[in-house]
Amino acid sequence: MDIKDEVVAEYIVIKALERGVTIIGLTRGEMTKIHHTEKLDKGELMVAQFTRHTSAIKIRGKAEVFTKYGKVELEGQEAKG
Amino acid sequence: MDIKDEVVAEYIVIKALERGVTIIGLTRGEMTKIHHTEKLDKGELMVAQFTRHTSAIKIRGKAEVFTKYGKVELEGQEAKG
Amino acid sequence: MDIKDEVVAEYIVIKALERGVTIIGLTRGEMTKIHHTEKLDKGELMVAQFTRHTSAIKIRGKAEVFTKYGKVELEGQEAKG
Amino acid sequence: MDIKDEVVAEYIVIKALERGVTIIGLTRGEMTKIHHTEKLDKGELMVAQFTRHTSAIKIRGKAEVFTKYGKVELEGQEAKG
Amino acid sequence: MDIKDEVVAEYIVIKALERGVTIIGLTRGEMTKIHHTEKLDKGELMVAQFTRHTSAIKIRGKAEVFTKYGKVELEGQEAKG
Amino acid sequence: MDIKDEVVAEYIVIKALERGVTIIGLTRGEMTKIHHTEKLDKGELMVAQFTRHTSAIKIRGKAEVFTKYGKVELEGQEAKG
Amino acid sequence: MDIKDEVVAEYIVIKALERGVTIIGLTRGEMTKIHHTEKLDKGELMVAQFTRHTSAIKIRGKAEVFTKYGKVELEGQEAKG
Amino acid sequence: MDIKDEVVAEYIVIKALERGVTIIGLTRGEMTKIHHTEKLDKGELMVAQFTRHTSAIKIRGKAEVFTKYGKVELEGQEAKG
Amino acid sequence: MDIKDEVVAEYIVIKALERGVTIIGLTRGEMTKIHHTEKLDKGELMVAQFTRHTSAIKIRGKAEVFTKYGKVELEGQEAKG
Amino acid sequence: MDIKDEVVAEYIVIKALERGVTIIGLTRGEMTKIHHTEKLDKGELMVAQFTRHTSAIKIRGKAEVFTKYGKVELEGQEAKG
Amino acid sequence: MDIKDEVVAEYIVIKALERGVTIIGLTRGEMTKIHHTEKLDKGELMVAQFTRHTSAIKIRGKAEVFTKYGKVELEGQEAKG
Amino acid sequence: MDIKDEVVAEYIVIKALERGVTIIGLTRGEMTKIHHTEKLDKGELMVAQFTRHTSAIKIRGKAEVFTKYGKVELEGQEAKG
Repeated sequence: MDIKDEVVAEYIVIKALERGVTIIGLTRGEMTKIHHTEKLDKGELMVAQFTRHTSAIKIRGKAEVFTKYGKVELEGQEAKG
Repeated sequence: MDIKDEVVAEYIVIKALERGVTIIGLTRGEMTKIHHTEKLDKGELMVAQFTRHTSAIKIRGKAEVFTKYGKVELEGQEAKG
Repeated sequence: MDIKDEVVAEYIVIKALERGVTIIGLTRGEMTKIHHTEKLDKGELMVAQFTRHTSAIKIRGKAEVFTKYGKVELEGQEAKG
Repeated sequence: MDIKDEVVAEYIVIKALERGVTIIGLTRGEMTKIHHTEKLDKGELMVAQFTRHTSAIKIRGKAEVFTKYGKVELEGQEAKG
Repeated sequence: MDIKDEVVAEYIVIKALERGVTIIGLTRGEMTKIHHTEKLDKGELMVAQFTRHTSAIKIRGKAEVFTKYGKVELEGQEAKG
Repeated sequence: MDIKDEVVAEYIVIKALERGVTIIGLTRGEMTKIHHTEKLDKGELMVAQFTRHTSAIKIRGKAEVFTKYGKVELEGQEAKG
Repeated sequence: MDIKDEVVAEYIVIKALERGVTIIGLTRGEMTKIHHTEKLDKGELMVAQFTRHTSAIKIRGKAEVFTKYGKVELEGQEAKG
Repeated sequence: MDIKDEVVAEYIVIKALERGVTIIGLTRGEMTKIHHTEKLDKGELMVAQFTRHTSAIKIRGKAEVFTKYGKVELEGQEAKG
Repeated sequence: MDIKDEVVAEYIVIKALERGVTIIGLTRGEMTKIHHTEKLDKGELMVAQFTRHTSAIKIRGKAEVFTKYGKVELEGQEAKG
Repeated sequence: MDIKDEVVAEYIVIKALERGVTIIGLTRGEMTKIHHTEKLDKGELMVAQFTRHTSAIKIRGKAEVFTKYGKVELEGQEAKG
Repeated sequence: MDIKDEVVAEYIVIKALERGVTIIGLTRGEMTKIHHTEKLDKGELMVAQFTRHTSAIKIRGKAEVFTKYGKVELEGQEAKG
Repeated sequence: MDIKDEVVAEYIVIKALERGVTIIGLTRGEMTKIHHTEKLDKGELMVAQFTRHTSAIKIRGKAEVFTKYGKVELEGQEAKG
C-alpha cells in the first residue's frame, strides 16, 4: 500500500493593478514558444506554477509580481512613455 | 510491511470578503483550460492545493489571499472603477 | 525486516465559534466535487489532513481556521449582512 | 543486514478539562466515517497520531488541544449557551 | 557491505507525580483497542515511542508529560473533584 | 564499491544520583514486556538508544534524565514518601 | 498509485527598465550556442528557469536582475558611453 | 561509476578525570550483554560511536561526558560516599 | 505517472564593467581544456551554471562576480599595471 | 551517465601540545581491538574520520581535541600526578 | 518522463593579485599526481569545482582564496622572503 | 535522460606559514599507511578532500588549518623547543 501524490514546483503570484495585464507562458522544450496567454482584469490575482510545459513566464502591464526574491512592481502602460 | 501515504503539494488560502468571489482552477496539461470554478460567499474560506490537474489558480473578487509570499488583498468590484 | 509506516500530509485546524460551521471536502480528481460535509457545533474543533481524496476544503460559518499562514478569523452569519 | 523501523506521522495532544471530552477519529477512505470514539475524563491526556485509518480528528468538550499551530482552548459545555 | 539500522519514531516522556499514573497504549490498526497498560509509581519516568503497534497514548494521573509541543501538567486525582 | 554503515536512532542519557537506579527496557513487539533491566550505581551514567528491541524505557530512582525535551530530575526514594 | 510531478530548477527574474532588453538563452550541450532570444519592452518582467536546454543566460540593456545573490542593476545603453 | 562510503552514527566523548574510568559497551541484540570494557587513565579521552554491536554505553568513574544534550560531569569515587 | 524534471547545479553571476570581459568555460573531463569563451560588453550580465561539460570558469576583465562567497570585484585592465 | 563519489563520515581534529601524543583507532567489529596507533609530535595536527574499520578513537597526551561538542583540552603527562 | 541533470560538488574561488598565480589540480586516484596546472594573470578570477578527477587543489602566488571557511589571503612572492 | 555528477566529501584548507609544511594522507583501508606526502612552500595553500583513499590527514609545520571546527594554528618548528 504505497500512495504518493506529489506536485512540487515553484509558483509565483501576480496581482493585476490595471485591466489587461498579460501573463504569457513560454514552453520548456527545445523551442521556446508562447503556449498560453492569460489576461487579468484590474484587481484579479493569479497564482501560477512552473510546469513541465512552462519554464518561463512573461508579464506585461501594471501589476505586482511576487517571487522568491520579493515583490516587484510593474508600472505598466505609463512606463512606456 | 511498507505503508506510505504521502500527499505533498503547496496550498493557498482564500478568504472571501464579498459575495461571489470566484476561484478558477486552470489545467496543468499542454492546453491551459479552466477545469473548475468555485464561488465563495462573503465570509467563506477556501484552502486549495495544487494538484496534478491544477497548476494555476485565478481569483476574482474582494478577498484576502494567503500564499508563501504573505497576504495579498484584492479589492474586488470597487477596484474596477 | 523493513517496517515503514508513513502518513505525511499537511493539516489544518478549525475551531467552530457558532453552531453549524460547515467543513466541505472537495475531491482531488479531474472533477472537483463535494465528497464530504462535516458540521461542527459551537466550541468543537476539527483537525483535517489533505488526503488522496481531498485537495480542497471550504469552510463556512463563524470559526477560527489555522493554516501554515497563521490564524484566519471567519465572522460567519453576521458577515453576510 | 538492513533494519528499518520507521513510524512517521504528525500527532496532536489533547488535555481534557472536564469529564467526557470526546475524540472522534474519522476515516481516511473515500467515505469519511467515524471509526473510533474515545472519551477522556477530566485531567486525562491523549497523544494521537494520524494513521492510515485516521485523517481527521474531531474534538468536543472543554479541553486544550496542541497542534503545530499552537494551543487552542475549547470551552466545552459552557460554549453552547 | 550495506548495514543500516534505523529506528525512527517520535517519543514522549512521562514523569509520574503520584503513585499509579497509568499509560495506556492504543492500537494502530483499524480497530482502536488498548494493547498495553503501564503503571508508574511516584517519581518514576517513562520514555515511550510510537510504534507500529501504538498510534495513540492515553495518560491518567498526576504527571508531567513532555511532547514536541512542550510540557503539559496533569493534575491527576484532585482534578476530578 | 558501495559501503554504507548507518546506525540511526534516538538516544537518552541517565545519570544516577543514588545507588540502584533502575533502567528497564520494554519490548517493541505486540506484547510489551520487560526485556532488560540495568542497575546503575551512584555517579554512573548510561547512554541508551532505542533499538528494534526496545521502544520504551522506564526509569526508577534518583537520577537526571536527558532527552530531546531537556533534563528531567527524578527525586527517587524520597519521592515515595 | 504513485503520482509525482516535480519541476525543480532555479529561476531568475528580469525587469526591463527600457525598451529592447534582450535575454539570451545559451545551450547546455557540449557546444554553447544561443538557442533563444527574448526581447522585453520597458516595464515588462520575465521569470526564467534553467532548463535542460538552457544553462546560461545573458542579459543586455537597462534592467533589474534578481538572482539568489540579490538584485543587480544593469545600466544598459548609457553604460556603453 | 558509483562510489559511496558512508559511516553514519552518533558519537559521544568521554574525558577521564581520574585513573580507571570504565566505558562499557552493551550489545544491541535481543540480549543486552557487556561486549566490551575499556579503561581510561586520568587525562585520556575517548570518542565512541554507536555501532551495530553497541546500542548502550555505561560510564563509571570521575569523567566529563559529552553528548548531544551537553556536558555531564561524573564525580566518580567520591560520589559513592 | 511519474514526471520529474530536475536541473540542479550551482550558478554564478558576472556583471561586466568594461567592454570585453571574457568568461572561459573549462572542461570537466580528465583533460582540462577551454571549451567555450564568451565575451561580455560593458553593462551586460551573465548567469552561468556549472554543467556536465564545465567544472571551472575563468573570468578576465573589469567585472563584478557573484558566487556563494559573496561579491568579488575584478579591476580588469588597470589591474595589470 | 551517473557519477557519484560520496565519502561521508564525521571527523575529529587533534592538535598535539607535547611530543608523543597517541591516537589509537579501535575496531568497529564484534571484537573491539586496537587496529592502528599514530604518534604525533609537539605541534602536529591530525584530522581523522570514522571509517568502516574505526568506530572509536582513544587519545592520550597533552592535546587539544576538536569534536562536534567543541574543544576539549587534555593535560597529558602532568595530569597523571 | 524522468529528466534529472544534477551537477553537485563544492567549488572554491581564487582571485589573482599578481601575475602568475598557479592553481594545481591533484588527482583523486590512488596515486596523487598533478593533472592540471592553470596560470592566472593579475586581476583574473577562477571558480573551480572538485571533480571526479580533482580531489585536492594547491594554490601558489599572491591571491585571495574563498572557501566555505571564509577568505584566506596568500601573500605570494613576498612571503618567501 | 538521467545525468548525475556528484562529488561529495568534506574538505580542509591548509595555509603554509613556513617552507616545508608537510601534508600526509593516510589510507582508509584496514591498514593505515601513508599513501601520499605533499610539501607546501611558505605562502602556499592546499584544499584537500577526504577521498575513498584518504581517511586521515596529518599536518606538520607552521601553518593555519581550517576545518569545520574553525581555524587551528600550528606553530611548527619553534613548537618543538
